[in-house]
Amino acid sequence: MAAEILRPLSINEVTDWADTADVVIIGYGCAGAAAALTAHEQGASVILLEMLSGGGGSSAMSGGEMYLGGGTPTQRACGFDDTPEAMAEYLIGALGPNAPEDKIRLYAQDSLEHYDWLTGYGVPFKPSFYDEPSWVPPTDDGLMWLGENAAPFSSITPMAPRGHRVQSDGFGGKVLMQHLMAAVEATEVRVQNDSRAVRLILDGDRVAGVVVRSFGENRAIRANKGVIITTGGFIDNPRMVEQHAPQMIGVGTNSDGNDNGSGILLGQSVGAGVRRMSAGQIGIAFVPAFMTRGIVVNWQGQRIINEDVYPGRVGQTALYEHDLEVWVILDEQAFEEVSDDLSWGARPHHVAETVEELEELCGFPAGSLRDTIAFYNEHAARGEDPLFGKSARWLRPLTAPFGAMNVRNSFAESPEKARNDQAGPKGSAAGVFTIGGLHTTVDGEVCDLVGEPIPGLYAAGRASSGLHGWGYVSGTSLGDGTYFGRRAGRAAAG
Amino acid sequence: MAAEILRPLSINEVTDWADTADVVIIGYGCAGAAAALTAHEQGASVILLEMLSGGGGSSAMSGGEMYLGGGTPTQRACGFDDTPEAMAEYLIGALGPNAPEDKIRLYAQDSLEHYDWLTGYGVPFKPSFYDEPSWVPPTDDGLMWLGENAAPFSSITPMAPRGHRVQSDGFGGKVLMQHLMAAVEATEVRVQNDSRAVRLILDGDRVAGVVVRSFGENRAIRANKGVIITTGGFIDNPRMVEQHAPQMIGVGTNSDGNDNGSGILLGQSVGAGVRRMSAGQIGIAFVPAFMTRGIVVNWQGQRIINEDVYPGRVGQTALYEHDLEVWVILDEQAFEEVSDDLSWGARPHHVAETVEELEELCGFPAGSLRDTIAFYNEHAARGEDPLFGKSARWLRPLTAPFGAMNVRNSFAESPEKARNDQAGPKGSAAGVFTIGGLHTTVDGEVCDLVGEPIPGLYAAGRASSGLHGWGYVSGTSLGDGTYFGRRAGRAAAG
Repeated sequence: MAAEILRPLSINEVTDWADTADVVIIGYGCAGAAAALTAHEQGASVILLEMLSGGGGSSAMSGGEMYLGGGTPTQRACGFDDTPEAMAEYLIGALGPNAPEDKIRLYAQDSLEHYDWLTGYGVPFKPSFYDEPSWVPPTDDGLMWLGENAAPFSSITPMAPRGHRVQSDGFGGKVLMQHLMAAVEATEVRVQNDSRAVRLILDGDRVAGVVVRSFGENRAIRANKGVIITTGGFIDNPRMVEQHAPQMIGVGTNSDGNDNGSGILLGQSVGAGVRRMSAGQIGIAFVPAFMTRGIVVNWQGQRIINEDVYPGRVGQTALYEHDLEVWVILDEQAFEEVSDDLSWGARPHHVAETVEELEELCGFPAGSLRDTIAFYNEHAARGEDPLFGKSARWLRPLTAPFGAMNVRNSFAESPEKARNDQAGPKGSAAGVFTIGGLHTTVDGEVCDLVGEPIPGLYAAGRASSGLHGWGYVSGTSLGDGTYFGRRAGRAAAG
Repeated sequence: MAAEILRPLSINEVTDWADTADVVIIGYGCAGAAAALTAHEQGASVILLEMLSGGGGSSAMSGGEMYLGGGTPTQRACGFDDTPEAMAEYLIGALGPNAPEDKIRLYAQDSLEHYDWLTGYGVPFKPSFYDEPSWVPPTDDGLMWLGENAAPFSSITPMAPRGHRVQSDGFGGKVLMQHLMAAVEATEVRVQNDSRAVRLILDGDRVAGVVVRSFGENRAIRANKGVIITTGGFIDNPRMVEQHAPQMIGVGTNSDGNDNGSGILLGQSVGAGVRRMSAGQIGIAFVPAFMTRGIVVNWQGQRIINEDVYPGRVGQTALYEHDLEVWVILDEQAFEEVSDDLSWGARPHHVAETVEELEELCGFPAGSLRDTIAFYNEHAARGEDPLFGKSARWLRPLTAPFGAMNVRNSFAESPEKARNDQAGPKGSAAGVFTIGGLHTTVDGEVCDLVGEPIPGLYAAGRASSGLHGWGYVSGTSLGDGTYFGRRAGRAAAG
């Protein structure tokens, strides 16, 4: 990141405008595409800038889950009722503490309309249900739980599965982006690849354009109405990670390798505020199908969570509370129940005929895991989990022989996943990305350090802090990126 | 905080300079005082601005612990050897992850000299040792452990107590500030109270002064050599807490009520970067003397930490990992061992003849605390704590009857402590302050968003991120505030 990005250019210093549009968008992931389509629908002329030689970004590398609900056709086809209110309540809890209720309520209230907008561009959701906790279903099913049916949320709000997975052979992000990019290309939106935004241009207080670097030359692009930053997060900027999220140093990343935080810095260069820069999505390498059937313990042999919860919640607990020193303990039946499709090639690191032997192999304090399993089994036999409230569906006494998988050394053999997650010095223990970013209003306006909108500047997607307090749920990045990308596009064009 | 703080003033817009000095310092806590004394020692003329009607700030409200070591006269008088290397290793571990090693190594290497500097101004450290974990000793003893003798640190680095507590009747911060302020007042440093810095003045890229608001009027003060921001943290700015540290919302605060983040915002207004804004010192209301003699458990009845560790470490675990839903479990002997001086009036919320009864009273899952105590007792009888490595000194089987104290409803009756901690909506469960802030070099230069120093701008104390990664130890705020305040004063005057 060059220091040049830090200094906005005064419009008086611009001698030559290489190009002009009503709305200039920086970054061609899902948020940029949604913003471009909507600004164009509103009659605005649009330039969409992309640093790389083609669009897609981390959106195209993702699993392709969209958090949608309120009674979508996919939900109804699978036999589930839902309401916007129930959806909002779940997100306020799961994305908290202090998730922005104004954004979440709008997002939930408009979710059906947003579903229609997506499917109107051909984004496919297969009307079939995948009924296990998972990062991404091994099937092409279109609907899945994302923790709504797990404690503590299952007792707080009416349950409905809201993980809408874009139908695909494998990860669905590429299919989402194929459809959105095809839609963009069918319009007059001018996509300019190989174009890196390096400075914002200010007309007084107002953001009025962007300096773009392409093939070694700088060009000034004028934005008559607004500039929208949709550049993604900053997990690929080691300096920003070190500044804001020391827990994530050395952990593997989950991105296209170009989530460099440049848009966040561009915003800050004109006085933008940022929010929750230390928060992250922690995709631990544990296979949810294994976790759910066993127990997850720390190195003291204590259980740490209900294992049927959204797996990112296990990930946050594992990294922030236990520095990834956590294990899944399983028995033979659990291993046998998990098909090869589901296991992603993961195998136990230790197996043992007795719990005492397993304690020794794993280095647990003698007797600790023994007590944990005895307590778990005693209650599991009755379909109860008094410690964490795991659903009776997954409760069953675990019986010897046992196996143990360590998250630090766990790995997934899915070629797609291996390609997507960039291992860090801590190995393939987790693939993380950042969820903090620019402070925005519900219309994507970027706010300054005291919360006032900066004229002419908008942001959406992971360059903003979006729907999130500290928690995360799959589908809220593609979801808030496209939804608030649209709102930003509409506001900027208006 | 008015929006005016956001916009630096160009020097060309200044028509009238109300005052001029080589070095202008904003904020008269320990860091400001140290910076002023040092800049003055270097021959610089100094103006020291204070928002309130007198100096002291949160430094004067604090316990008065300074983290010092390397073999200070106080340590030697109490019979302890120490080295700068051992001190640095402890801080790198305890303040991590990713605590800044360059700052810590300088801080440790110069600690003896810094001790001499402090005592040279009359700051008193009584050469006597207080040998229990504590927030602040109930005595006026001058030396205490701050976790150096507790796992995991006790096995990583040579142990030495380094908590130097300014001798005082009660909290020592006021005594520290009395001495430093007396020293400042003996110089030609011009202290200007009731003077709130509202804008920085820029000469090109260089910070060249401050706009100060006093009694409704703005004055421009020119800084020929540098401006030093020593305004403290931001725990009293609800907007900044909400932006950066959602976990701290609703928790009680530990400050003078004026840690409003204004200096951090001033720095950001000229492009400064910030670090670790979500991190905090969590002073839970548990009395360490009770914790150490009992066990600390979460609402699942699981132990969460070795109870003899630095109590702020329990606090971070309690807030970030358990949302303050933690309890101390004690037996009669433990209560009897804690004198009234030490207990700060805290009493058990529940007492019970049996562990089963206590589980019911506290709402623990039946059998959970029973298992925890049985495991603890079995090993404590042998002087072992295989789960967390608590020191054998504090290990003893706990026997019925039992008592339980809940951190959420715990309170301290010490008038000084009650006055100091501002209870939040979550009650007196904890008194917290922020430890993130402006990014500075080892010489207190404030860095911009890509890490380059901003000419003419310096910071120290809790307006900067100081020595900290994510962890905290008492005495590192007064310690880094005075030490890096001095370095900033020297650099700005140079």
